[in-house]
Amino acid sequence: MKNYILKIATHDEKGLIYKISEIIFKHHINIIKNDEFVGEGRFFFRASLEGELDENALLNALKQTLPQNASIKLSEKRKKNIIILATKEAHCLGDLLIRHYSAALFADIKAVISNHDTLQELVEKFNLPYHSIKSEDLSRQEHEKKVLECLKQYDFDYIVLAKYMRILSAEFVAHYEGKIINIHHSFLPAFIGANPYKQAYERGVKIIGATAHFVNNNLDEGPIITQAVLPVSHQHSWQEMKEAGANIEKDVLAKALNLVLEDRIFIHTNKTIVF
Amino acid sequence: MKNYILKIATHDEKGLIYKISEIIFKHHINIIKNDEFVGEGRFFFRASLEGELDENALLNALKQTLPQNASIKLSEKRKKNIIILATKEAHCLGDLLIRHYSAALFADIKAVISNHDTLQELVEKFNLPYHSIKSEDLSRQEHEKKVLECLKQYDFDYIVLAKYMRILSAEFVAHYEGKIINIHHSFLPAFIGANPYKQAYERGVKIIGATAHFVNNNLDEGPIITQAVLPVSHQHSWQEMKEAGANIEKDVLAKALNLVLEDRIFIHTNKTIVF
Amino acid sequence: MKNYILKIATHDEKGLIYKISEIIFKHHINIIKNDEFVGEGRFFFRASLEGELDENALLNALKQTLPQNASIKLSEKRKKNIIILATKEAHCLGDLLIRHYSAALFADIKAVISNHDTLQELVEKFNLPYHSIKSEDLSRQEHEKKVLECLKQYDFDYIVLAKYMRILSAEFVAHYEGKIINIHHSFLPAFIGANPYKQAYERGVKIIGATAHFVNNNLDEGPIITQAVLPVSHQHSWQEMKEAGANIEKDVLAKALNLVLEDRIFIHTNKTIVF
Amino acid sequence: MKNYILKIATHDEKGLIYKISEIIFKHHINIIKNDEFVGEGRFFFRASLEGELDENALLNALKQTLPQNASIKLSEKRKKNIIILATKEAHCLGDLLIRHYSAALFADIKAVISNHDTLQELVEKFNLPYHSIKSEDLSRQEHEKKVLECLKQYDFDYIVLAKYMRILSAEFVAHYEGKIINIHHSFLPAFIGANPYKQAYERGVKIIGATAHFVNNNLDEGPIITQAVLPVSHQHSWQEMKEAGANIEKDVLAKALNLVLEDRIFIHTNKTIVF
Repeated sequence: MKNYILKIATHDEKGLIYKISEIIFKHHINIIKNDEFVGEGRFFFRASLEGELDENALLNALKQTLPQNASIKLSEKRKKNIIILATKEAHCLGDLLIRHYSAALFADIKAVISNHDTLQELVEKFNLPYHSIKSEDLSRQEHEKKVLECLKQYDFDYIVLAKYMRILSAEFVAHYEGKIINIHHSFLPAFIGANPYKQAYERGVKIIGATAHFVNNNLDEGPIITQAVLPVSHQHSWQEMKEAGANIEKDVLAKALNLVLEDRIFIHTNKTIVF
Repeated sequence: MKNYILKIATHDEKGLIYKISEIIFKHHINIIKNDEFVGEGRFFFRASLEGELDENALLNALKQTLPQNASIKLSEKRKKNIIILATKEAHCLGDLLIRHYSAALFADIKAVISNHDTLQELVEKFNLPYHSIKSEDLSRQEHEKKVLECLKQYDFDYIVLAKYMRILSAEFVAHYEGKIINIHHSFLPAFIGANPYKQAYERGVKIIGATAHFVNNNLDEGPIITQAVLPVSHQHSWQEMKEAGANIEKDVLAKALNLVLEDRIFIHTNKTIVF
Repeated sequence: MKNYILKIATHDEKGLIYKISEIIFKHHINIIKNDEFVGEGRFFFRASLEGELDENALLNALKQTLPQNASIKLSEKRKKNIIILATKEAHCLGDLLIRHYSAALFADIKAVISNHDTLQELVEKFNLPYHSIKSEDLSRQEHEKKVLECLKQYDFDYIVLAKYMRILSAEFVAHYEGKIINIHHSFLPAFIGANPYKQAYERGVKIIGATAHFVNNNLDEGPIITQAVLPVSHQHSWQEMKEAGANIEKDVLAKALNLVLEDRIFIHTNKTIVF
Repeated sequence: MKNYILKIATHDEKGLIYKISEIIFKHHINIIKNDEFVGEGRFFFRASLEGELDENALLNALKQTLPQNASIKLSEKRKKNIIILATKEAHCLGDLLIRHYSAALFADIKAVISNHDTLQELVEKFNLPYHSIKSEDLSRQEHEKKVLECLKQYDFDYIVLAKYMRILSAEFVAHYEGKIINIHHSFLPAFIGANPYKQAYERGVKIIGATAHFVNNNLDEGPIITQAVLPVSHQHSWQEMKEAGANIEKDVLAKALNLVLEDRIFIHTNKTIVF
């Protein structure tokens, strides 16, 4: 018995559920769980399937039945491969390493790439490759070229920016559309850019947050996957906000990553549908 | 064009979604939104339908296709009627009155019944019937008999206990199974019974809560609909906990009531499935 | 026995607590509760006092001992008077009316002013003056002049904008510095300006919020008093976000207002210290 | 310049703040931050001090001035030493290891003791002693005797139960009164004892939680330090509740531990005062 994830996105029309569920039923497979959502004239469907399956036959049947431009993805459930990019901070990376070590992350970490060597010792404790690609004396383009070359040796599904404190160029991002997940240390869209905790302190907010999102060409403006917040007060210096925020950063990143790894997300325009 | 809610609960088997969606499709009605859940071998389905509908034909088709013991409910979407029972506190009742007044509650309040007359003036500002049924010098049985008689003059769907500080007998509850919604001023199952804020204070908890639930024969043990919490500290006296808690009590009750009024809830054993 | 609130703000220096507490002690009054905070070189102190007190003597002693520019405020604890400005929405206003009615608001509502007459019936149920000052065919200046004239008949401490959907001019605000409390229907500084729920929907955030703040000359940029958030998902239309958000708007406004009414807040630069 | 923490607990009487702050002032040391609380007739005071200090002189002055039974503790600010007890689960332990490694924990982990060897490899990655003290074929008393012997080789301030799945006897606890911190995987006092996630699932709650508390003689009834919650729904199996809960367990434990390590907590009867 195998497990599959079926994801369909198309314009909405009458009878889609009926047509899809009929095809699934007639292929004698079980729907373990399914979700659908209709919004702004679009239909999104995700099902977790179980059974012995002729993948091509199912796909063909769906293609013949669904609207012509429908996006239909059927994939066997499997552990994904990820590459982590980090800079100097250990909290998000460390959390992923522990989850990976204790099999609480449905992914294999193939390597960690950093623009510093601060985190090398930590990563190597877990017997994972660490690539220190320094950015000093390099243009953004030159540095990214080196990172891209490094990435090429690996077969991976997603790039996770676990507090990678460099802005990725549009060219870099274009290589991995919908494949890069970032944790931003604010409650987006508030406090885009550098040092959001200091911005939050200066604005005098009473709640701070963290946001996990897909990376696109606009800084901190990609589709949001998940967010979390925590209360602060006048008693917090911005450094204390940063310390407190670190705890939700790692939680939000891990939660978002799990949603991505389980194929639970659709990206539509600049938003996510999360099942 | 009419709007309907279809709710189905049955034991789970293969192809239910297919069979249900086929019937709906062939009756030429739109599914605006549908949710399903399978748990502990049970299948729960709720759909919001839109269209011109031969109700009996649809129900018959479903009955012939679905498992024999399936519970199938089809009802036109309509404002429900509610009776509110309260005692002396104004916050939950007042919140419902304002929601009712400003059309933010999908229900008609038919009457308010209380064992005190404290709230009469407030209720009458909103031109609603108020029945003061005092319990002094009456046994529980005698008092409930009077309340039951009062209820009989009204056609209603649900009874809402908006801080009604009396325990209802099993006999009373039996008349309105799955029809009575209560707000309990604690994070159940913690602090069942009297004065939960004082209990919370004495235990030294750092978070307090409120719980909306259906009433069954066991005090504060009916199926939970929704819960909310808020942080407290050593600085809160139990009276301050009570004041702070009042704010979430009314929110939790209103949120739960909206879910009930929109037919979003299935009761299964001692739990709720909330779509 | 009387109750007083003493509030002191000054630049920080050694021994302030000692000097202040000595003076209080020697005036034979009890400190029920006191809070202090030092930040950015400033010292903030608030004490709740109980006893028979020669107010001038205490003030003089403090003035002679504390730094020359210290702000020292001593006031007997008393119910404050407020004026509410609203537009058409009933939820924030209604909540304040119920709290006022049930003595859960430590203030007297002297009047409600609105640029529409939608809320008149509701306000008059509670026997409070309602002034409908329409803005049609009037310039902002003309309209505000009328509002100012209306305000002049009342003796009040604070103006509460309970979803007053007009922008106040700098001239208007200058009359009531630190005296106007607004509820903004977003998690500031995100989504400043008009229709923040639509902005939130379009950005695809997963959490929405509400912010109570003092009003200053910059739209939605005054000192924040309190904020709250609630989770949303792709399933929320912006109208549903608005409905859900209404519940926290009224809670946040009421919470902030209570803090203001109990003299718990210092405004410093663009921030609040909340004791 | 040294940093000190001064903690005073006594019955309340007039002028305590004045007397304490006078003594501190006259010893020419700075108060960086101070907090006080009066509740149930008790006075609690904590100050963070900075300066050159004759510790005995300050203590003597305080003793002569404060009520006779006052508890007065003055200690130089220093990293505390902790011993962690764990069983098989890696999430809480792993989080503490990462915090320790990245200097985000104000403590030295002296050793990890477990009744299993599951976690040995993880602990040894971080070059920390791991003691596997199996409980098979041993009575509780025999096993605890071995643990006590093991503990004796270390100089430590606190024992942290990072999901140590054994109940400690009253005899064991008596050795370390107020020195043992536990994380319980429920929102206490709900779901005391074994498998709280299963209990929560069976009760059908809509929010689950975690509680960090000091351990005393009654199972899961010691003074609560901090709690956190997260929402669940009918869609969560109890195993999914457990997975989701693991994330707040480690956050709550770390947060509570930081409060303990910074000497921010008073234990009074069965509660905590947390500054």
